[in-house]
Amino acid sequence: MAKKLYHGAAYYPELWDEKTILTDIRLMKETGINVVRIGEFAWSKMEPIEGEIDLTFFRQIISLLNENGIEVIMCTPTATPPIWMSDNHPERMYVDADGRTMIHGSRQHICTNNPYFRKRAAILTNELAKALGDMPGVIGWQLDNEFKCHVAECMCATCKEQWHKWLEHRYHNVEQLNDAWGTDIWSEYYHHFEQVPQPGPVPFLHNSSLKTMYQLFSTEAIAEFAEEQAAIIREHSQLPITHNSTIMFAVDNERLFQNLDFASFDTYAPAASYFSYLFNCDLWRNLKKGKDFWIMETSPSYSASLESYATPHPKGYLKAEAVASYALGGAGFCYWLWRQQRAGCEQPHGSVISAWGKPTVGYEEVLETEKARIAIEPFITSTRPLQAEVAITYSDRAKIFLNTEPHKGLHYKELITDIYKHTLAAGIHRDLLPEGAELSGYKLLLTPFVPYLSDDYINRAKAFVEQGGVWIVGPMTGGRTEHHTIHTDAALGKLEELAGMETAFTFPIENTGSVGEAYGLTARLGLWSAVFDGKDAKVIGTIKGGLVCGKAFLTEKQLGKGKLVMLGSLPTGEEGSKMLTEMIHTYAREAGVLADIKATEGTIVAPREQDGRKYWIVVNMDGKGGSVTVPQAVRDCITQENIPAGEWKLGKYDYRVLQSI
Amino acid sequence: MAKKLYHGAAYYPELWDEKTILTDIRLMKETGINVVRIGEFAWSKMEPIEGEIDLTFFRQIISLLNENGIEVIMCTPTATPPIWMSDNHPERMYVDADGRTMIHGSRQHICTNNPYFRKRAAILTNELAKALGDMPGVIGWQLDNEFKCHVAECMCATCKEQWHKWLEHRYHNVEQLNDAWGTDIWSEYYHHFEQVPQPGPVPFLHNSSLKTMYQLFSTEAIAEFAEEQAAIIREHSQLPITHNSTIMFAVDNERLFQNLDFASFDTYAPAASYFSYLFNCDLWRNLKKGKDFWIMETSPSYSASLESYATPHPKGYLKAEAVASYALGGAGFCYWLWRQQRAGCEQPHGSVISAWGKPTVGYEEVLETEKARIAIEPFITSTRPLQAEVAITYSDRAKIFLNTEPHKGLHYKELITDIYKHTLAAGIHRDLLPEGAELSGYKLLLTPFVPYLSDDYINRAKAFVEQGGVWIVGPMTGGRTEHHTIHTDAALGKLEELAGMETAFTFPIENTGSVGEAYGLTARLGLWSAVFDGKDAKVIGTIKGGLVCGKAFLTEKQLGKGKLVMLGSLPTGEEGSKMLTEMIHTYAREAGVLADIKATEGTIVAPREQDGRKYWIVVNMDGKGGSVTVPQAVRDCITQENIPAGEWKLGKYDYRVLQSI
Amino acid sequence: MAKKLYHGAAYYPELWDEKTILTDIRLMKETGINVVRIGEFAWSKMEPIEGEIDLTFFRQIISLLNENGIEVIMCTPTATPPIWMSDNHPERMYVDADGRTMIHGSRQHICTNNPYFRKRAAILTNELAKALGDMPGVIGWQLDNEFKCHVAECMCATCKEQWHKWLEHRYHNVEQLNDAWGTDIWSEYYHHFEQVPQPGPVPFLHNSSLKTMYQLFSTEAIAEFAEEQAAIIREHSQLPITHNSTIMFAVDNERLFQNLDFASFDTYAPAASYFSYLFNCDLWRNLKKGKDFWIMETSPSYSASLESYATPHPKGYLKAEAVASYALGGAGFCYWLWRQQRAGCEQPHGSVISAWGKPTVGYEEVLETEKARIAIEPFITSTRPLQAEVAITYSDRAKIFLNTEPHKGLHYKELITDIYKHTLAAGIHRDLLPEGAELSGYKLLLTPFVPYLSDDYINRAKAFVEQGGVWIVGPMTGGRTEHHTIHTDAALGKLEELAGMETAFTFPIENTGSVGEAYGLTARLGLWSAVFDGKDAKVIGTIKGGLVCGKAFLTEKQLGKGKLVMLGSLPTGEEGSKMLTEMIHTYAREAGVLADIKATEGTIVAPREQDGRKYWIVVNMDGKGGSVTVPQAVRDCITQENIPAGEWKLGKYDYRVLQSI
Repeated sequence: MAKKLYHGAAYYPELWDEKTILTDIRLMKETGINVVRIGEFAWSKMEPIEGEIDLTFFRQIISLLNENGIEVIMCTPTATPPIWMSDNHPERMYVDADGRTMIHGSRQHICTNNPYFRKRAAILTNELAKALGDMPGVIGWQLDNEFKCHVAECMCATCKEQWHKWLEHRYHNVEQLNDAWGTDIWSEYYHHFEQVPQPGPVPFLHNSSLKTMYQLFSTEAIAEFAEEQAAIIREHSQLPITHNSTIMFAVDNERLFQNLDFASFDTYAPAASYFSYLFNCDLWRNLKKGKDFWIMETSPSYSASLESYATPHPKGYLKAEAVASYALGGAGFCYWLWRQQRAGCEQPHGSVISAWGKPTVGYEEVLETEKARIAIEPFITSTRPLQAEVAITYSDRAKIFLNTEPHKGLHYKELITDIYKHTLAAGIHRDLLPEGAELSGYKLLLTPFVPYLSDDYINRAKAFVEQGGVWIVGPMTGGRTEHHTIHTDAALGKLEELAGMETAFTFPIENTGSVGEAYGLTARLGLWSAVFDGKDAKVIGTIKGGLVCGKAFLTEKQLGKGKLVMLGSLPTGEEGSKMLTEMIHTYAREAGVLADIKATEGTIVAPREQDGRKYWIVVNMDGKGGSVTVPQAVRDCITQENIPAGEWKLGKYDYRVLQSI
Repeated sequence: MAKKLYHGAAYYPELWDEKTILTDIRLMKETGINVVRIGEFAWSKMEPIEGEIDLTFFRQIISLLNENGIEVIMCTPTATPPIWMSDNHPERMYVDADGRTMIHGSRQHICTNNPYFRKRAAILTNELAKALGDMPGVIGWQLDNEFKCHVAECMCATCKEQWHKWLEHRYHNVEQLNDAWGTDIWSEYYHHFEQVPQPGPVPFLHNSSLKTMYQLFSTEAIAEFAEEQAAIIREHSQLPITHNSTIMFAVDNERLFQNLDFASFDTYAPAASYFSYLFNCDLWRNLKKGKDFWIMETSPSYSASLESYATPHPKGYLKAEAVASYALGGAGFCYWLWRQQRAGCEQPHGSVISAWGKPTVGYEEVLETEKARIAIEPFITSTRPLQAEVAITYSDRAKIFLNTEPHKGLHYKELITDIYKHTLAAGIHRDLLPEGAELSGYKLLLTPFVPYLSDDYINRAKAFVEQGGVWIVGPMTGGRTEHHTIHTDAALGKLEELAGMETAFTFPIENTGSVGEAYGLTARLGLWSAVFDGKDAKVIGTIKGGLVCGKAFLTEKQLGKGKLVMLGSLPTGEEGSKMLTEMIHTYAREAGVLADIKATEGTIVAPREQDGRKYWIVVNMDGKGGSVTVPQAVRDCITQENIPAGEWKLGKYDYRVLQSI
Repeated sequence: MAKKLYHGAAYYPELWDEKTILTDIRLMKETGINVVRIGEFAWSKMEPIEGEIDLTFFRQIISLLNENGIEVIMCTPTATPPIWMSDNHPERMYVDADGRTMIHGSRQHICTNNPYFRKRAAILTNELAKALGDMPGVIGWQLDNEFKCHVAECMCATCKEQWHKWLEHRYHNVEQLNDAWGTDIWSEYYHHFEQVPQPGPVPFLHNSSLKTMYQLFSTEAIAEFAEEQAAIIREHSQLPITHNSTIMFAVDNERLFQNLDFASFDTYAPAASYFSYLFNCDLWRNLKKGKDFWIMETSPSYSASLESYATPHPKGYLKAEAVASYALGGAGFCYWLWRQQRAGCEQPHGSVISAWGKPTVGYEEVLETEKARIAIEPFITSTRPLQAEVAITYSDRAKIFLNTEPHKGLHYKELITDIYKHTLAAGIHRDLLPEGAELSGYKLLLTPFVPYLSDDYINRAKAFVEQGGVWIVGPMTGGRTEHHTIHTDAALGKLEELAGMETAFTFPIENTGSVGEAYGLTARLGLWSAVFDGKDAKVIGTIKGGLVCGKAFLTEKQLGKGKLVMLGSLPTGEEGSKMLTEMIHTYAREAGVLADIKATEGTIVAPREQDGRKYWIVVNMDGKGGSVTVPQAVRDCITQENIPAGEWKLGKYDYRVLQSI
């Protein structure tokens, strides 16, 4: 891909006539759209009749776009198999947890593990790669579309068979499975892998191990499908391959992107949830470390379907989003979609151009975004985002554990977002890291809400601490084994020895009258908690009242040059929020985390660098404006003026590109 | 039917012994019940064993009733096929959207499209018509009972086959369907009609066209069943045929009643929703224009089943209901039911007589109703209701479009009722018209919430305007094609040229900070909105704040002698309500709509006439009493006294029959 | 069983290794656990392969426990059939009301009516009884575990067949069924018992008779399974047999325990619902009258599963629970569970020892409980609980009627608990009695919320009244026949003649403006009500306002030496609560109900006796402490000090054992 900032849109030329396509291309150029994503759902256009593949249309479109200076991300259309695949073939269809077999007419109706689907997908993708893989103007590939966005774990017969093989691969013999899962409970005991059920209808709950493993199997299988498809493309095309994912789908993104070339994601967070938007940027930048990420789908104004809609973005927000994403490591900022669908279930969805060819309510925002893109492009393309000093582990496997064991309706995304928001509010540049990410270069690591901590993770975190890092573990971290069972040596397993404390009890502390005291603050404690005896660790937070008065909920232990901090419970309410912020501040300070430039809450500072020179892109995200404090004079790269040290105001959704002098 | 007011009840003599039946007839005479509806669910009584039809019991009952001066509406019992039809025949049963096949034991368990059901229904109805069609005392027929009250679109194999035929009939060839539905989206594309699925389980939403068309198919099919049954009856009986429907069922009432002889409906609106009761009267009067309607079922006090109950009517309300319905064009006012069921799932339901033969809590109200019926009968039977000058289009097809595309949980009934309530509150006599109704004689026409406006409708409305009418279009009207897709020429299609404005944008305006200004009022705007550029139209309502400041939401255009008013958004909240009322008042005034007699909100004035002499039946419906203003002296037909011009009080649930002098 | 107080726990040695088991036994002895319940879910351990039964492990465990002074309740493991029973045998599985067939992996997945299941269960139980039935240390049997806790009525083909036989047994010929159920309604009429459906999917509601009868069939069938199992055990073992039930499951406990030897129940009521805990004690004491009951499961601190948790008990509450249960007739107080599960879906559940072998948050409470047990044991084991003078009828068959006809979401348990709470608040010792219980010795009988009153019940209650008792009937009592239909002679059938009043109307009185006046209090009336004409009865409560002003809702009639009180409606709100309390006080006083010792609300007094000497165990249950008034000096059995007449304070969760001097 070129060293430029991409401003793009999803485009479905197969839905429109030639005249409309020509109009669209003209309008795209006017608007500043320099890349489109095509082909996504077009299987029936490419292969209307089984075996009769004709890609002429897409070759022509790509040529036409290329002639007009619009580059292309080419997609495989495997999310929408044609009627010849699905009609009269219930055995190929996705089966949901209630046993309902899907039919044709929407997306993701076929089981992606079905061998016939896989065969046909392979044939088509091979033809696509051959025909289009080296065409001028094509700059990359997107596999499928939003894997598992509408579906989760399939319960079909194919999946059952593969599940048994997966189990055999993981556990080798069934006795190991029985032992690992504790299947003597409730006489669940299995004699053969073939007897292990899928988590279908039962009177009460399934074994936690079975539920968690089935999700792991499913996320592994979809990643394997992606790899199979990527391998086919690579036989014919050198272009980088991605997939448009989110953290809301039933996938393990770390695993999914392992063998893909760059990360991209879709986001439709409304402006009021700008922190979710930033969360994504801070995560996806780190899913393929060192590679720019793409926002493959976002709405120019609002998302909608026949049955719902979001609040349209306020004026100025789209531009702030774009600048923030480019600043935080994005290379592409693409809309869904260019021209509003005239039919189907997404016809009300926001777009750049309406179904009748006119600018939409978001159009002016797109123009403003393009202006900003042009303004910042030189500074973004010539610099790289700086690694943060603070890292928070994000884990889709932790999400799976919490799906299986939600305690009382807990959602991993909400829990981890809450921690993220506290870090954001503390004004600290941060990275959200997959579990397997390198920890070198970080100073502070938070690992909240990860029920199972792998040995590998613990070892790497331990090394990180020994070399001077501060590692905050919890809440709700480490209490489960890899099989989703409970440790039998200590509540938090081997972690306790490392952390020097001992878990006295684990229990649901909320509504028991317990408060936690730390940093001179007092807050109610909540969630399922582990409460500690200090032992060799220093007690930082003590519990008062309730059933465990005098126990600790926050301890720290010096380990090598660093510290291991155990947080056993979640301080809640307004005071709890203050306590979390204070905890983050305290350990950030201790760890030597620096923030050159400070901004008030709602405004972010994205640091970048080039050859040792630092750049900061400052963006107001909350629409309230903010103030920015620079410790010494900096240069405003766009106005080419110097800004003296001190505090100054930033307008609503406004941005600056600053450079160290 | 005789020129009289019917006061009736549903009666199930097949459930009771002879002695009880004789008691019932005696009590009916005491109470003033002059008509009963029988046979409704009695298939197993009429044909206990397949092919052994014996109607002696019903012949005897009819004779007995006739001897006692009680007339009969005879029903076909097709809503409850006997066990010999359903047992061991899953292929004959209704299948719901989740794929569950119904069993025996309730109602509507059989698919009404099943050929064997249709055959047996035809045989039985033929025998019924032959045996009872000319019996003295029988005055009409009711087909089945509340078509589609418990069920909606059936998903059985028979329906699948007929769906394909219906599609072929509508679209002729599958390419037209593919084009009309835009099936290139998501590779939905069909090669044959046989491939088009029913809207069964899919991971996300079905194509809007498919969902809407399947509902249209289903409503057409049930209307055809009704016509088939009516044709059989007409071979043997001259009596008028009806069906007891409501606007809550999955039917298209305009289509359903097209070939039936008179309209009737069931209503169980509680007193607090008296406007819903009036809504029904104003609608059903116009479904078979010029024919009296019947209220075939209403409760003397409260409705109930094993799992729910309504609040009993306050004292006096039943009489008000009856007087209002007769005044507004009703000829029959019938209870469900005469004698409380002693068994089954409706045993708690309110009735006139209890299961143990005693008066119920509603009995005194029934007596009072009978007194009122006698008092007004001469004035009702000798006059005809006046056509209103204001019409609001009611469309079950619009309801279907909103079922498919509810935006955010919108319900057509609630939306249209809200508009109706504003008209009611404005004190204007009004007609709710089916889409196909004649517009001559009207002065003001409102067409809110009709996503698809047919050419035929537009042409007739245009002619109406050119001849001097005012036509208010919107909100949410005209934005979809007949196939439930989006126009590609303009947001509202050809309507825009007619209305002189141009739609700038369509989008969900709520929570974007936009307010509308019109008539000196300012109100928040809500719902999915179309905002306009005035162009050749005059801007009446302007948008302030938000994303589209300066655009219009209300325009008007002179067209011939009349005006076409476009309302693109819904003013909401208390101020919005005032604005709607003001808009209706303004255009009613401009259109020359007259209200001779004014009443305060909660009191209605139903105008009737005879040979040029006007009558007004005034009824207090809200139980708060009201005041009535007559511009010149009128005669109180019941007291035979004159009432001078001016304002006077009307008691709670009280009524007057006034006559011009 | 020995004359001692049992303090026990559920234990699953099959889940742990030998070393852990030895540790557990040592810890049990330290803690004071003197009985464990084992084998409950261990079918796959006992019979891993079909037909290969090996009970050696359990023989060894029992011996080991016995050597350590820990007695055993042995369980049959039939709630969890192994994989060899369930795999590939859908015809053996439980089928829910939506038609979903269960699979392996949880509990209660097999239909307990399946003949093959019954055969295998019989074989295993026979072996268990033979092998373990006379082992030293075994003191009793528990059948299965919590029948119908996760499931209700099965819809499988086996059940269908047995349902038809059950109907034939009950109704002899199908015409009687048709007549009893009123199947002429909706042409439900059946020609053969084989045609009667199970209450599966229908468009609307099933016939009330069918729904109620299917539940009765199901509760009868599960009781028969228990009896079949008990008979097998009795061939080899003399030990008493029980089952651990609750009032929340789909069983008829009166029928279920009819042929079992002693009653036991499980309760997880949180401390805030201490009245539910007491409700259970007062009920289960009377299910096997004269026999001590057991609490077979309760949590030392909190219950939990993967998806939910309860609030942990406050300090001191566990001890109060234990003392109250022993005082109120309990012989065993057992925890679920001893050692926290390390795997499965109940791994978060509270226990005495954690999965890693440490004391839990509830451990100290268990020690305190053991101290209390030792302190009171001599006084409990040498005395018997006194029969109360006030009885409230508890009926699972009434619950079934309300399941079928919940009016508006009514739950029997909540309704009856509300009445119970009023009795509790009145400070009166009370018995909850099954319908068939003897009434001799009681002075006041309440029969609320029993839709169907059997002739037998009425006759016994009548005799009770004639001999001087006061019988309060209602609300919602007596209005349905045994077939769940409505009486056709009078609203409340023959009850009315007995009570001297006449029901004027039955209807949902709430929100109609009616208030009731009685005892100088005025309260809103609620629920489905029967309102009365006094006739030969004395009107105590009169209705004002609304639709039935002047009618009665509370009447009384002298009958022999006693009184029959009819309560037709439920006084609601705070005033209604006062009125109910006043009603109970008034009739308790009239009936001569005595309370020797009075305690403030939240503190109970449990009377016992030995050879004419009275004992009172006083326990504060609400954690607020209370005060106790003794009319004359009593002896504190534990401190051996006398307490003079008068009022004194009792600490939070504190208890006393008092003795008459």
